[in-house]
Amino acid sequence: MKAIALKSAADKYPLVCAPLVGRTRGAVLAEAAAVAAKGPDLLEWRVDFFDDLGDAPAVTQLAADIRKATGLPLLFTRRCTREGGQKISLTEQQVVQLYAAVCRGAAADLVDYEMGNDPQHVHAVREASRAAGIDMVMSFHDFHGTPSLAELGQRFAQAEQLGADIAKVAVMPRGMQDVLTLLQATWAASQALSIPVVSMAMGREGAVTRLCGAAFGSAMSFGVGQAASAPGQLPIDDLQAGLALLRKASG
Amino acid sequence: MKAIALKSAADKYPLVCAPLVGRTRGAVLAEAAAVAAKGPDLLEWRVDFFDDLGDAPAVTQLAADIRKATGLPLLFTRRCTREGGQKISLTEQQVVQLYAAVCRGAAADLVDYEMGNDPQHVHAVREASRAAGIDMVMSFHDFHGTPSLAELGQRFAQAEQLGADIAKVAVMPRGMQDVLTLLQATWAASQALSIPVVSMAMGREGAVTRLCGAAFGSAMSFGVGQAASAPGQLPIDDLQAGLALLRKASG
Repeated sequence: MKAIALKSAADKYPLVCAPLVGRTRGAVLAEAAAVAAKGPDLLEWRVDFFDDLGDAPAVTQLAADIRKATGLPLLFTRRCTREGGQKISLTEQQVVQLYAAVCRGAAADLVDYEMGNDPQHVHAVREASRAAGIDMVMSFHDFHGTPSLAELGQRFAQAEQLGADIAKVAVMPRGMQDVLTLLQATWAASQALSIPVVSMAMGREGAVTRLCGAAFGSAMSFGVGQAASAPGQLPIDDLQAGLALLRKASG
Repeated sequence: MKAIALKSAADKYPLVCAPLVGRTRGAVLAEAAAVAAKGPDLLEWRVDFFDDLGDAPAVTQLAADIRKATGLPLLFTRRCTREGGQKISLTEQQVVQLYAAVCRGAAADLVDYEMGNDPQHVHAVREASRAAGIDMVMSFHDFHGTPSLAELGQRFAQAEQLGADIAKVAVMPRGMQDVLTLLQATWAASQALSIPVVSMAMGREGAVTRLCGAAFGSAMSFGVGQAASAPGQLPIDDLQAGLALLRKASG
C-alpha cells in the first residue's frame, strides 16, 4: 500500500478528497468554504462543472483562491464526458492549454487527466505538470460496467507507463462480483506498481469500496462535502468515521 | 445475500453477535448483562471457556438464564481446540451429550458445531437440534492460514450437504490476497447455497471483513462486548456504527 505524498499535507492513508462542482466563482468559493469545514484532506475542483472554464486566467486565479481560502491541497480535474464529466464547449486542445495555464500558475497540487485521451494531449499535460512540480493522476473511468481483471490491470499499468504519479481507476459494478474484481485489481496493482493507486466501484453496490478500498491498496477516497461528483460517494462525515474505525481495527 | 431468520429477533442483515467467555456462572451472567447493554442482535456463549461445562444441567440452566436475563437470542457453542477453542476435559461424546441436553432443554436459539468433527457426532448434534427446532451452524475455522478458493467453496457446500441451517467459515489471512479469497468464496457461496453463510478473515488484516463481509454475503459479524473470542473482532459500538454507515451508503 503506497500513500500519496502531498507537499502541503501530512502523508495520510487513505486521503479523503471532496469534490467541488459549483458553476460560478461565487458558488465554487462558497462550496469550498463549506466543504473545507468538514475536514477533507484535499479538494478536487471539477472544472468541467464551471461555466467560465474557457477563461484560463480566471480559472487559474480561482484555483489559487480555493487553495488560499481553504488552506487545503487542490486536485484540478476536467472530467471528459466519455468518462462521466459534464459537456463543455472547449476543444481538447483548449483543455490541454487550460491545464498548462493552471500548472504554469502553480495553482494546484495535483492534476487529473484521463489516460484514454489523445497520447499527445496526455504527454502535454504530463510535461506541463512535471515542469511545475505538480503531480499528475492518470485516470480511467467506466460508467457503464466493469472491465475484466486483466483489463483493469492493464489500465493501472498504463498510467505508470505513461509517467503518472498516481493511477486511478473507477468502474460501475453490475453486481458484487464486479466489486470483488475491482478490489482484486486494486490490490494487485498496489503490489505491482511503483506509484500509488486509487480506485472505486461506483454506485450503491460499490459504496463499500469507498470505505474498504484502502485495505486493498487504494490511497484516496472521495467523499461528499456538499454535492457528489459521482454516484456512491459517502458523506465526508461518514467516510471519515468509517475510515477511523477501520484504522483502529487494523492498526 | 440471505439473512438469518431468528424466531426471537427481527430479520436483520447482518446480525451482530457478541461472544460470552466467562469462566463461572456469576461471571457469565455479569458479562451477559454488560454485553447485552451494548445492543448486539444475539449472544454467543462459548461454553468451552466455562469451568463447569461437565455439568450438563448447570450448563442448560445457565443458557436458559442468559436468554431470560438479556432477552436476546442465544447461540450455544463449544469451540474445539483444533479450531481455536479452549482445552476442555470432556470427551467428544460428552460434548455431544451436552449439546443434546441444551437442545432438549430448549435453552438456545442456535447451536454451532464444527463440520470437521466425527460425522456421527455432527449427525447427532444435527438430530438433537432439529428435534428441538433449534437452528444449527456448521462451522470451519483455520487459525493458521487460508485455504484455496476451491477448498473454501467446498467447506461452505459441505455444511449445506450435512444439513446445516447456516454455514460458517473463518480463516487467518496471511496478507490481503487471502482476505480477498475469503470474500470471493463468501460471495460465491452466498449465491450458490440455499442457506445463509457467515464468514470472516481473522486478525488485524482481516478486520475489514468484520465490516464489509455483509456486502459479500456474510449474514453475521462478531463484535466484542467485553472480551474477544477470536482475533480481529471490533468493539460492538464500532461495528454497529460502521454497519450503519454502510447500510446507509448502499441502501
